[in-house]
Amino acid sequence: MRILVTGAAGFIGRALLQRLLVDTDGADITGLDLVAAPPEASGARLSWISGGLDDRAVLEQLGAASFDRVFHLASVPGGRAEVEPALGRRVNLDASLDLLQLLAQHGNRPRVVYASSIAVYGALSGAPVSAQTEARPLISYGAHKRMVEIALADHTRRGELSGIALRLPGIVARPRPVSGFGSAFMSELLHAVSAGESYACPVSPDATAWWLSAKVAVDNLIRAGEIDVCGTLQLPALRLSIAEVMAGLALLYGAERPARVTFDPDDSIEKVFGRFPMLEVDAELALGFAHDGSAAEMITNALRAGYI
Amino acid sequence: MRILVTGAAGFIGRALLQRLLVDTDGADITGLDLVAAPPEASGARLSWISGGLDDRAVLEQLGAASFDRVFHLASVPGGRAEVEPALGRRVNLDASLDLLQLLAQHGNRPRVVYASSIAVYGALSGAPVSAQTEARPLISYGAHKRMVEIALADHTRRGELSGIALRLPGIVARPRPVSGFGSAFMSELLHAVSAGESYACPVSPDATAWWLSAKVAVDNLIRAGEIDVCGTLQLPALRLSIAEVMAGLALLYGAERPARVTFDPDDSIEKVFGRFPMLEVDAELALGFAHDGSAAEMITNALRAGYI
Repeated sequence: MRILVTGAAGFIGRALLQRLLVDTDGADITGLDLVAAPPEASGARLSWISGGLDDRAVLEQLGAASFDRVFHLASVPGGRAEVEPALGRRVNLDASLDLLQLLAQHGNRPRVVYASSIAVYGALSGAPVSAQTEARPLISYGAHKRMVEIALADHTRRGELSGIALRLPGIVARPRPVSGFGSAFMSELLHAVSAGESYACPVSPDATAWWLSAKVAVDNLIRAGEIDVCGTLQLPALRLSIAEVMAGLALLYGAERPARVTFDPDDSIEKVFGRFPMLEVDAELALGFAHDGSAAEMITNALRAGYI
Repeated sequence: MRILVTGAAGFIGRALLQRLLVDTDGADITGLDLVAAPPEASGARLSWISGGLDDRAVLEQLGAASFDRVFHLASVPGGRAEVEPALGRRVNLDASLDLLQLLAQHGNRPRVVYASSIAVYGALSGAPVSAQTEARPLISYGAHKRMVEIALADHTRRGELSGIALRLPGIVARPRPVSGFGSAFMSELLHAVSAGESYACPVSPDATAWWLSAKVAVDNLIRAGEIDVCGTLQLPALRLSIAEVMAGLALLYGAERPARVTFDPDDSIEKVFGRFPMLEVDAELALGFAHDGSAAEMITNALRAGYI
């Protein structure tokens, strides 16, 4: 078994790589990212390619190999793609399409797990959201994610790939300093309370969001790589209000630390990141995808070192 | 006013060009197609670019100009794109995205009318179809059309383009010999009966399809160029059974010529091109888009010389 992970040095990529190195007996793993090889890459099981998918030489290097399973996580974050649209198109769209085309031409119908995003949905109306909800992306990042989902489904229909796209919610807890993400407050809240710091929360206690730990996000990616089901799926996540997350924090750390949180709601953040409706993911749950179970488990999973 | 028409030598492109040259007072028109300039291009109002949008030099030539209105019709037909996927991607997807990006960077927010296709829908369930029907394309051509719709909507959201995508049904009557299209029988039936020839129809009299003449398709494109509404629209078309079309032909040509049609239904054609459900296009009709009105008018429009 040969496994490729793109974006392997990113927040999710690193956690996935750690899990693959522990779990997958005998698999040869190739990590790809812009940064230099991490220490693990000195072992026999992990190879490393430093570079971007928008680099012809990197694609040629990939084309020379054959992969059975691919986790395509690499992307330019949404905020940056919005202000650098040509870069966003080149990496998030064109390079992703090039990777799919390369894998499709290899003839071995590899399993491809694509990290899509809830950014495909655009404005949330308040109605429950499922993978069938009409995608009306409001940032280029979401538009490109939707376009790659369609391309992946087309390669799958052609019998060239076994493709599955997972729409990931914001994943917690991103390492500090958490920046460049509108949903940064979700990770910051967990870090601050667990560390006993005071924190001015930019959304109200009633604000609802979808919460999923990096650990369970990785569980879901692994699961997606193992099953044969193709298509576009919405990953399960806990829909929790800030008040429910605070109750979870109180359970784990006592009442004193959460009491250091003050609320200073910012309408623009609350509107986009604090009005998440119910998720309808029965089909995904039946396929073995999962959320963290409870607020306290989600927090525990989110803050554990190493995620595995 | 400067107008660009891509695919200007194609079936719809030629008809659109004729109309623009008659209707639009003083507009400078640029036609782009793979073929050499037609005779009309010797006039003062029509310039011509021979080449493909996947040719860097052609894009540079376009980039040097500034257009107020663009009709983007150029594409590799669905059948050919399916057997030559790299060509299909290069022209129907990448070159279209390059054109949109070029127009978006110009700073004058041109009106862009994109000829999308009912191929975006994929299998039709029998439920009425509207622009809100979930797109599940079953050919790469349809997947690429859907992806370009999304890119056009994103450039529009960014304020760079004023984009409208029209989902065109199969347009009649394509000039003979009609080839390479599964829906070729629609045009062939009209040509054969009007010429008094015998014709073996590959679908049954009950088979329903969406019928729109090239003339009214052009009316709709012109309309789309003139209004400010942005988004993805389903063009109106008459939903007619073959029997209803035959009745229209009898009205125009008498009972004798339609009687020379025999029926030899081919299940594979009937299944894909003979089970078209109702169209829900109230919003589009309210915006001034139209079908031909009746079977007899559709046939008359479809078979008129020059379309204008």
